[in-house]
Amino acid sequence: MSTSTSTQIHLVSRPTGWPEHSNFSTVAVELADLADGEIRVANEFTSVDPYMRGRMNEAKSYAAPYALNEVMTAGAVGRVIESRAEGFNVGDPVLHQLGWRDIAQAPASNFRVVREIEGLPLSVHLGILGMTGFTAYVGLLEIAGLKSGETVFISGAAGAVGSAAGQIARLKGAKRVIGSAGSAEKVDRLTQKYGYDAAFNYKDGPVRGQLHDAAPSGIDVYFDNVGGEHLEAALDAFNPGGRGALCGAISVYNLTEAALGPRNMSNMVTRGLNLKGFTVGNYAEHYPAFIADMTAWVAQGKIVFDETVVEGLKNSVQALLDLMRGANTGKMVVKL
Amino acid sequence: MSTSTSTQIHLVSRPTGWPEHSNFSTVAVELADLADGEIRVANEFTSVDPYMRGRMNEAKSYAAPYALNEVMTAGAVGRVIESRAEGFNVGDPVLHQLGWRDIAQAPASNFRVVREIEGLPLSVHLGILGMTGFTAYVGLLEIAGLKSGETVFISGAAGAVGSAAGQIARLKGAKRVIGSAGSAEKVDRLTQKYGYDAAFNYKDGPVRGQLHDAAPSGIDVYFDNVGGEHLEAALDAFNPGGRGALCGAISVYNLTEAALGPRNMSNMVTRGLNLKGFTVGNYAEHYPAFIADMTAWVAQGKIVFDETVVEGLKNSVQALLDLMRGANTGKMVVKL
Repeated sequence: MSTSTSTQIHLVSRPTGWPEHSNFSTVAVELADLADGEIRVANEFTSVDPYMRGRMNEAKSYAAPYALNEVMTAGAVGRVIESRAEGFNVGDPVLHQLGWRDIAQAPASNFRVVREIEGLPLSVHLGILGMTGFTAYVGLLEIAGLKSGETVFISGAAGAVGSAAGQIARLKGAKRVIGSAGSAEKVDRLTQKYGYDAAFNYKDGPVRGQLHDAAPSGIDVYFDNVGGEHLEAALDAFNPGGRGALCGAISVYNLTEAALGPRNMSNMVTRGLNLKGFTVGNYAEHYPAFIADMTAWVAQGKIVFDETVVEGLKNSVQALLDLMRGANTGKMVVKL
Repeated sequence: MSTSTSTQIHLVSRPTGWPEHSNFSTVAVELADLADGEIRVANEFTSVDPYMRGRMNEAKSYAAPYALNEVMTAGAVGRVIESRAEGFNVGDPVLHQLGWRDIAQAPASNFRVVREIEGLPLSVHLGILGMTGFTAYVGLLEIAGLKSGETVFISGAAGAVGSAAGQIARLKGAKRVIGSAGSAEKVDRLTQKYGYDAAFNYKDGPVRGQLHDAAPSGIDVYFDNVGGEHLEAALDAFNPGGRGALCGAISVYNLTEAALGPRNMSNMVTRGLNLKGFTVGNYAEHYPAFIADMTAWVAQGKIVFDETVVEGLKNSVQALLDLMRGANTGKMVVKL
């Protein structure tokens, strides 16, 4: 690998429905010499996240859509290999949002030095100690306002966010934590590894009935990663005063027709429900509390996590497609 | 009218779809002599409200459904005609929830003496100074959290709640207030009487397009009385951080099949939207602020209101049917 060439994955056309490999291209960019204030970083891991599908659309009001013929921006961690910026030394581990490329070079303000944790790969800063864990933390505690003694339902519970959210709910005193996932193996993992009280495979039958069986006394909090049928089922299961944190809707991202909406929105009025969508970037004020709590929980073994590691930048697009089909367990990253 | 007989309207069977007259019966109940602590009240006005349709269903989790073969409970105002309770004198105007009957008799704790306002009928305590005005106030200011400078959309804007909500929005500094209604005459009233900046007839074409024309820069707050297509259109019009107060969904109350849900719920996530359903009974702590503000606004002529008055208890059911078809302007009451 030449460190003066940055190999990058660009979005070259906007997908309709499921993305195809032809929507992307691999581009080698020759890097200029470092300017004053810049650093050069060799990435070790790049992040693969469900929200990336949304950014491929030219959607009004969404966090900036990906530009065509530009790199797929995303979280990434690596090490400084050259520095002309104060506070950044060769070898420092850094986190940034410059995305799917092997070498990143930019003004130092784009990077943040992260703490190296013995025995853990740098990828934890993309996952449990990164945006993923922060999303679970903010969604459950700030957006949904989970209180001790409540019953929580989390969809897509074996994913990176869902597996963290279930464990946070348990640590914060939830009475009962219920999760859905898309395979028997994931369902087992929910109850046996992530501390869920009950779990079901949403492919086994209608979500509504399975949720009712798992939560016969109803739910107080819903953490939604899936949307669609899951959201409608949660609206039927909510107790009065229930709150939903809407984090994602992976079931609808690749539909080419409009998704059917929940047919029971009138429950919102009669039960006094609150649904709140969020993207974690708007809740930075909670980051210090998150990082303090989560670092301690991980160090003490109170929160466990999985990673699905795909080798090689060239497999990034396939990794994203696999993620959207649910092939991952826990956080999906590409290792360079 | 004998004051020892209470003529009442009972629900005798639960409607499917639109209620029919046969779902109700008129019953004369002989009253016992007053017990200690009781009062007897001759009602002057009974209330007719959209939420009453929901209570006719045997719905889980809803505020208690109406019992069969019992009176249709609802707000009512009248005057004490006989009293064996301290603090209640013959002639006092009182508000209560004992509903569709001419004479109400019960322990005094069921009644509250209201202030008589010169030049205004007692029915204002059912409308602008009662549950209706309180619903508009709480929904706009507490549930949706309207801030000065924001753009507000109110559906069913010529109804009792909507016409109050639009004027409260203006008094609280909204930049632009937009309303929908179901006739040209109501649309005129919105802009000419209730101070709306723009209004449209939802029967003239798709709500989405008409709302976009009326609010080309999007909306920040939505006050929903209608549900269905209106809610979907609002979800498309919301600016990032938009909030919806879901008060009612009159478009779906009488459907016999499930209403189609909003197909754009994923906007909730991408725009960080918040939808909150409410019933005003859960927000009693805001009542003192409401009654102080609203009494002053009405006295100073800063808020105007309309009533649709139907004569005669026996026309109560027809009044409710007319209300659900939008035949009223402002608050619908039955005058006894």
